[in-house]
Parts: sequence; structure tokens; C-alpha cells
Amino acid sequence: MDSIVVVGSVALDSVKTLWGESQEALGGSAVYFSLAARHFARVSVVGVVGRDFPKEHRHMLAEKGIDLTGLKELPGKTFRWVGRFGRDLSDAKTLATHLNVFANFRPKLTAAQRAARVVFLANIDPDLQSGVLDQMRRPALVACDTMNYWITSKPDVLRRLLGRVHIFFVNEEEAKILSRQPTALQAARVISHWGPKVVVVKQGEHGALMRVGGRCFPFPAYPVESVKDPTGAGDTFAGGFMGYLAAVQAYDNIEHLKCAMIYGSALASFNVEDFSTRRLENLKRPALDERFREFVACLQVQDGSLPALMR
Amino acid sequence: MDSIVVVGSVALDSVKTLWGESQEALGGSAVYFSLAARHFARVSVVGVVGRDFPKEHRHMLAEKGIDLTGLKELPGKTFRWVGRFGRDLSDAKTLATHLNVFANFRPKLTAAQRAARVVFLANIDPDLQSGVLDQMRRPALVACDTMNYWITSKPDVLRRLLGRVHIFFVNEEEAKILSRQPTALQAARVISHWGPKVVVVKQGEHGALMRVGGRCFPFPAYPVESVKDPTGAGDTFAGGFMGYLAAVQAYDNIEHLKCAMIYGSALASFNVEDFSTRRLENLKRPALDERFREFVACLQVQDGSLPALMR
Repeated sequence: MDSIVVVGSVALDSVKTLWGESQEALGGSAVYFSLAARHFARVSVVGVVGRDFPKEHRHMLAEKGIDLTGLKELPGKTFRWVGRFGRDLSDAKTLATHLNVFANFRPKLTAAQRAARVVFLANIDPDLQSGVLDQMRRPALVACDTMNYWITSKPDVLRRLLGRVHIFFVNEEEAKILSRQPTALQAARVISHWGPKVVVVKQGEHGALMRVGGRCFPFPAYPVESVKDPTGAGDTFAGGFMGYLAAVQAYDNIEHLKCAMIYGSALASFNVEDFSTRRLENLKRPALDERFREFVACLQVQDGSLPALMR
Repeated sequence: MDSIVVVGSVALDSVKTLWGESQEALGGSAVYFSLAARHFARVSVVGVVGRDFPKEHRHMLAEKGIDLTGLKELPGKTFRWVGRFGRDLSDAKTLATHLNVFANFRPKLTAAQRAARVVFLANIDPDLQSGVLDQMRRPALVACDTMNYWITSKPDVLRRLLGRVHIFFVNEEEAKILSRQPTALQAARVISHWGPKVVVVKQGEHGALMRVGGRCFPFPAYPVESVKDPTGAGDTFAGGFMGYLAAVQAYDNIEHLKCAMIYGSALASFNVEDFSTRRLENLKRPALDERFREFVACLQVQDGSLPALMR
């Protein structure tokens, strides 16, 4: 198994949906990613929190085997996000973002982190993402995510970064804007020409589309009827995806990449069942494997043997 | 193999998309459905055209083995639809609808049609759909589609009809309106309580979701990069779906229903590759079967055998 370094936010989120709300609960891309990837690989976080970051969160994450030696504590407050979801669960409304100590985040990797084989650059300033990559010794697998804000404000930096990553995770809407293409399929094709061998377009409740080796593999989302809080679903998906690849240590095998898609979906489906990281915290590997197998069976189609007369 | 009766529109469509346009080209729900279902079963159309309906369309359809004895010709003009698609191919803008002879359509089945085992009630007035059902002797499989217009104007008639059908095909947006539910999954659950054993929620480029026996089976759309004209994709999907079931004569076997989903998607994917019915007209069974198998393989995931230490 290869170890994974993840660089991203560690946050306190206040989220309201039609099914309830959470106040200053644990969140952030690096947290969701780690809680998903830990089922498969050793994960090490690069991030920053303020003095107010609750000790119990640190303890919980450490207890799950997540390495926090790279999680700096600085004077000031932890990054906070306040958001709301209406009936359309793919549409997060940001009510407030308080960067706090995250505003001056300059990721600095430990010696062990520099030597990691796998790195996930969660959605932060692409200049910082590049800076992290510069610090890595010789990673076997580099993946990143991004968001609208960077697509619009730093398109050139982002394009250069994409030339250096193997796997690019991106939301459908953002993929369309970045590529100036009308469909997810066309967006994935255009973006794959910029560097990433694997482009994963995340489509929320509609699943995700993976483009690799000139071929497209669309997968639906695992069906969850009672979604309580979609926050972190994308990072959880990436965590399952990358964790699985790190465990099998195979980075361009299509069958493994398909498994990674399914583990990513399975993890994301657990995550949205409850607020914050609650469901991910108490998720055990057997339940995850069971959902993986159930989803694989759901998608498996037996070749229909029609009566010969119809052929 | 069971034979299928389809009741629906036979039209002349004028469609403009970003990739070209067609003028007064062959269209209509009954036509798309028949051209898809003919690969698997004998299809018989109940419909109406005007005196201006081009003879070559009749010849083409008859040549494909589609029974047109129930396609009446009346004085007046054929039903016409004028539409446009922008970059968002799931969003058809209707510029004009000229019902013409279709305005007084009162479907009357021939003796052979009454005895058919399978019937598809395409999107027409639910009162007419019920009237067709009343004429059927003892169908083994009844399926229907509908649209916003009827959901709003005749909700009670539609609800009663749903109590009489086995399979209900419906667009995602329409399913949400009909059921007053926020997601496709919840909509499918609510609607399935109204009667249909199988609810298929069509999600355009995102695929389709089937609910049967209390379980949900989401499938993506077969990836087509260069969609030229999405007109008729839903009816083509239903044609492949129903045709396959009529061929295997199995109506509540989940494995067959999954195959039906994939054949429906495969047929719809061919249909959108060209304007009007062009691609469907010249589609041969081997090419269809090849795409079916390719799609099945694409969705097949081999259970990832992770190193034991990770378990």
C-alpha cells in the first residue's frame, strides 16, 4: 500500500438543509478526503487550523489512523463555512466564508510527506497546489480538484498545474466552464488533452464520468433516498477513489480505475446520509465493502440471450 | 415473441440544433418507438396522418416490418412540431405545435391489435390512453408515458391510468412535478405506490433510473459525444426497452428488466447521432448488439481484491 498526502481545508461548517442543520461541525476537503481514504491507505494531512479547533476533532481523526503531524495550529480562528441546500441538493448556497487562519495558508510538507507516493491537491489556490507539488520528491500519482473561483481568477496557473497531474476531479458545471464545452463528455475530452490521463467529472446525484485512454466510463451515483447533507460528497468520493488506487498500487489499469469509481461512490453515499462527518466517522470497512459489492451487482447486466428467430 | 401495439403520434418535425436542422422530417412518438422496437418484436401502430403524409415514409416503415394497418389517413394535414435545442440538449424549446388531424384522434384498434399481448401508450391525452386500454382483450404488459401538460390538466385521469399500467416511463422533471418530490429516487418511490410495478425515470444525458420491487437501478446513458438531435430519444428508449421484453416474454424478471434498460439506452444513443429517424432507419441488429455488449462491459466492475492487510 502507498501512503497518501492530502492538502486542503480543515473547517468548521454550519450547514442547513431541508432535513436539519449542523453548527460549527467538522468539515473541510482534507477532512472528508482523509476519512474516506483511511479505509485503504495511510493518509497524512497538510493543513492549518486556529487555536479554537476542538481537540476532540484532532483525537477522532488521529484515532482513525490519520496522520496530523502536518496539521499546523496558528494563532487565530479556524476556517469557517456557512451554507445552505434547498430542494436541489446539487446547488450549495454559500452564506458566508471566513478564511481566518486559512487566508495565510502556505503548505509546507514534512520530510515524510515529501516522500509520499500519492498526493491529492484538494480545491485550494492553484499556486499553492503547484507549490506542494514542487516539494514532493517523486510522487507516483498526483491528483487535484478545483473550483469556479480559480477557473475564473487563475486560468493559466490552473492549466499549467493540469499539465502536471495524473487525475483531475472536477464538477460537471465547472468542467463545462473550464473547457467551454456544452456537455460533460466533450468537456472531459478537451481537458484530457491538457495533461491529465484520467479526468473524473463529478455529477452529484447523477454520478460521475471517467475519461481515460480515450474512452468514457459513466457511472451513476449509488441511490440514496434520504440525503441529509451533501456537504463534502465530492471530496469523500475522491478519498475513496484515491485510497483504493493507493491500496492496489496500480495507477493506469482501467479495471482498478472502475473499482475506484465504485468505492468513491459508495463512500460518498454514506457521507450524505448524515450531517458533517458523522456517518464517515463510524463507518466500518465491512459495511463499505458490502455496499461496494451491492453496487457492482446492481450495475452488472447479464447478456440477454434472445430467441434465435429474432437475430 | 409477443407482438406490440403502440398508440401515439406520427408527425413531421422541423428541428434546429447547434449542429444543423431538419425540415418537416419524419417524427412522432409512435414512429421512434416502432423503429426501435422492430429489432425485437412485431410492432403495430395506432395513429393518424393527413393526406400530405409522404408515401415514402409509409414505405420505409412498412419495409422495416412495422404494421401500419392501424395508421389512419384523414382529410387534412399531418401533425407538425417545430422545436429547437440550445447548448443544453435536455431542454427542448417548442416553437410551434400544429395538431392538425391529430386534434380529433380517436384511436380505434383492429381486431388483431386488440389481441396483442403488449401495448405502449405513448404520450397522448390520458383519456385516450385509457380508451385504448379498454379496447385491449387481455394484455400481458401495459406501459405508458406522459408529459407536463397532462400532469397539470388531467391529474386525476392520469392517476387512474397509472393504476392500470405495469410500466411507467416519465422524464425526471415531470416525475418530480407529478409526485411533488425533490429527487428522482423519491419521485419513483411515490409513483410506484400508485400502481406501476416498474417506474422508469428518464434523465436524458444522465441516463435513467428504474424502480422495481422496492429497489432502484440507476443506469447512465451510453456516452455519445456528438449528439446532433435529441428528438425522440425517450420514445426510442421505450421502444428498445419494451421490444426486448416482448422478445423474451418475461415481464417481472429483474435481470431482463436491466437488459431492457441497456437496449433502450443503446437505441437512444444511436437515435441522437443524427436528425429525425435517419440513424434508426439504417441501424442493423449486429451494430445494436455490439453497442449493447460494449455498454454492458463498460458497466461491469470486477470485484477489487485488495491486499489482505487492508481489510
